[in-house]
Amino acid sequence: MALRGVVVVAHSGGPTSVINASLEGVVEECRPHPEITGLYGAIHGIEGVLQERFIDLFEEDEGIWPAIRSTPSSVLGSSRRAVTDSDLGRILEVFRAHNVRYFFYTGGNGSMDTAHRVDTAARLGGWEMRVIGIPKTIDNDLVETDHTPGYPSTARFFACAVRDVGADNRALPSPITFVEVLGRNTGWVVAATSLARREADDAPHLIYCPERRLPVDRLLADVEGVYRRLGRAVIAVCEGQLDETGNPFGADARASSRQPLAMNLGHTLARIVTERLGISARSEKPGLFGRSSAAFISTVDRAESRMCGAAAVRAAAEGMSGKMVTLVREPGQVYAVHTSLAELTMVANRERPFPAGWMNQEGNDVLPEFREYAAPLIGEIVPHARLRGVLVQRRIADVE
Amino acid sequence: MALRGVVVVAHSGGPTSVINASLEGVVEECRPHPEITGLYGAIHGIEGVLQERFIDLFEEDEGIWPAIRSTPSSVLGSSRRAVTDSDLGRILEVFRAHNVRYFFYTGGNGSMDTAHRVDTAARLGGWEMRVIGIPKTIDNDLVETDHTPGYPSTARFFACAVRDVGADNRALPSPITFVEVLGRNTGWVVAATSLARREADDAPHLIYCPERRLPVDRLLADVEGVYRRLGRAVIAVCEGQLDETGNPFGADARASSRQPLAMNLGHTLARIVTERLGISARSEKPGLFGRSSAAFISTVDRAESRMCGAAAVRAAAEGMSGKMVTLVREPGQVYAVHTSLAELTMVANRERPFPAGWMNQEGNDVLPEFREYAAPLIGEIVPHARLRGVLVQRRIADVE
Repeated sequence: MALRGVVVVAHSGGPTSVINASLEGVVEECRPHPEITGLYGAIHGIEGVLQERFIDLFEEDEGIWPAIRSTPSSVLGSSRRAVTDSDLGRILEVFRAHNVRYFFYTGGNGSMDTAHRVDTAARLGGWEMRVIGIPKTIDNDLVETDHTPGYPSTARFFACAVRDVGADNRALPSPITFVEVLGRNTGWVVAATSLARREADDAPHLIYCPERRLPVDRLLADVEGVYRRLGRAVIAVCEGQLDETGNPFGADARASSRQPLAMNLGHTLARIVTERLGISARSEKPGLFGRSSAAFISTVDRAESRMCGAAAVRAAAEGMSGKMVTLVREPGQVYAVHTSLAELTMVANRERPFPAGWMNQEGNDVLPEFREYAAPLIGEIVPHARLRGVLVQRRIADVE
Repeated sequence: MALRGVVVVAHSGGPTSVINASLEGVVEECRPHPEITGLYGAIHGIEGVLQERFIDLFEEDEGIWPAIRSTPSSVLGSSRRAVTDSDLGRILEVFRAHNVRYFFYTGGNGSMDTAHRVDTAARLGGWEMRVIGIPKTIDNDLVETDHTPGYPSTARFFACAVRDVGADNRALPSPITFVEVLGRNTGWVVAATSLARREADDAPHLIYCPERRLPVDRLLADVEGVYRRLGRAVIAVCEGQLDETGNPFGADARASSRQPLAMNLGHTLARIVTERLGISARSEKPGLFGRSSAAFISTVDRAESRMCGAAAVRAAAEGMSGKMVTLVREPGQVYAVHTSLAELTMVANRERPFPAGWMNQEGNDVLPEFREYAAPLIGEIVPHARLRGVLVQRRIADVE
């Protein structure tokens, strides 16, 4: 017999450009279920649950959803609040008061831990409910799933950014340009900039993944090598990159915040190159734009994000709880995925690093195996048109 | 009688996302002229002229041009080389050797000075030729023209970037986010971020133009005011912004280059806010991506850039020289422009600041008059979809 009650869906952590598509998937899949008596969106994630601040999603005009699907960032709002044990009690109290029997929590590995704790607390408290995690992170660092909704679109953004900055750098050599790429501890996004390349001299010329520490001397030798060959270099670095001593480069901006990040990485590296090699260098840091841009949404990503939202509702309707939806890549030449489920306990607080076997030995590029993995997720990165460039014969002998 | 000879077209300064459209305009307009015996593109601008390095553009497949038109950055390559008097002699020597009778130089106010000097040198040297400038700069700081090709697309990029970063900031307050915007000395691009707004609480919440110095205390008071009201703030600042003493904020990265720029502005301001107000702050700096992105090309800009290239050829074919093509906005409700011509001497080395009358008194926002000027150039900035957001009634009394 179907469990009768209210659904709460909540977002956690950094928004992505497709998180609203998974919300749409939840809403669409809930609609035909008569046992779902209400569909609430928590305002600013778990904060909204704690403060009983919910939007009634059944009150929204049905025609709004196609636009919401393509809107980046969370239309519900999100939160990074770490859930305490006393919060858990409050959450259960709110769920009982509103007869919430279904909780869909959209987030990364920390959020899956929260979902697991809510699931456990409900069981121990004798409150029957279904808790299902919907995967979301641009970092692509969740285990048990082929990849994570949100990642392909941010990967696409940075591949296009490096392609375009590379075209600028070719036309008017800067000559050294760092592009700082999102990705907390893992190199999945920075690796994707490799998809910007078609010709041998295309950017990025160097790619560093934060799974390996980056000795400054190593970086300088790499940059100098590319510069000697091409007279320029575009380097993709990850915001989470650590130096040889395990410290972030130039991490001074967030000294007052809980989690210091290497917020000034690109600039710091540019300064080091300018000072040590005497070559002019600059840096670009699209930052949060890289996870919030409608223009670079991967259509595969959007469709899969929606699928994951819908699959969460189906799993809960079938009586499952304590699981996260996963994406399983089907074998074969043509890219296809289906959804499956993993135990929340298998996913919670675990991190999937970029595979060491997909990096080259020098640690400054990624291997074709990664390209095969990532290309179908990210979609085609159209190379820029170039002229054939038939040269006119010179007519003056004494050319410098 | 038509002057028979070769055309050279060259690009100067920073590429834009529509400079290739003006190249296309030149090529298309040259084709039907029998007196044009050759059409050469200089590789890397004036460097290519000096080194006799030309691409024969008549050798390109005609079918390539629609793709070239939509390709950002210069397919010829550009240069920032300052032309010396001895360079001028060499340029004339090369022009005589190849029977170059038409020179189209695409650039900003410095480049128009170079074009003027080439025109004068040819006249003094008894070499009959036509020199026409094609306007190009993302900075929009050329005088004598309503606006400059390249500006609308970069303005569109940053308006979309601020809209999207603003959506991210609303969903998960950062809480203070600076977006560093291109624009050397003038506020035209940073002002355009105002087009991201629809609702009263939309980003950007503060806009600073570099025409006014920015006292740190003033900035801190502004930021604190917005933060108190909204709990967050997105601030658009221009890379060329100077502090109250006339120095750039955080300009250490280019100490070794000719022209030091405030390359670390956003980060420096974020650090100041964090330290002085105790509010966590971050910064984004899309940088060169803002002038090289195909995804944000303004269709009006692309069409006008093409028009300017074609108009340059027509002017030269009619016997004119020493002029720059300008855009003249037609009076009336519906946006329309036609091209005209200005003397190179009127444009060379002159800079058009953002009008003081289009800024508010506090110096932290722009007025609706600017919006009316810029909106038709930049095209529609589609606002993000939002939920209606009907709140669910609370059921627990003791809400915190």
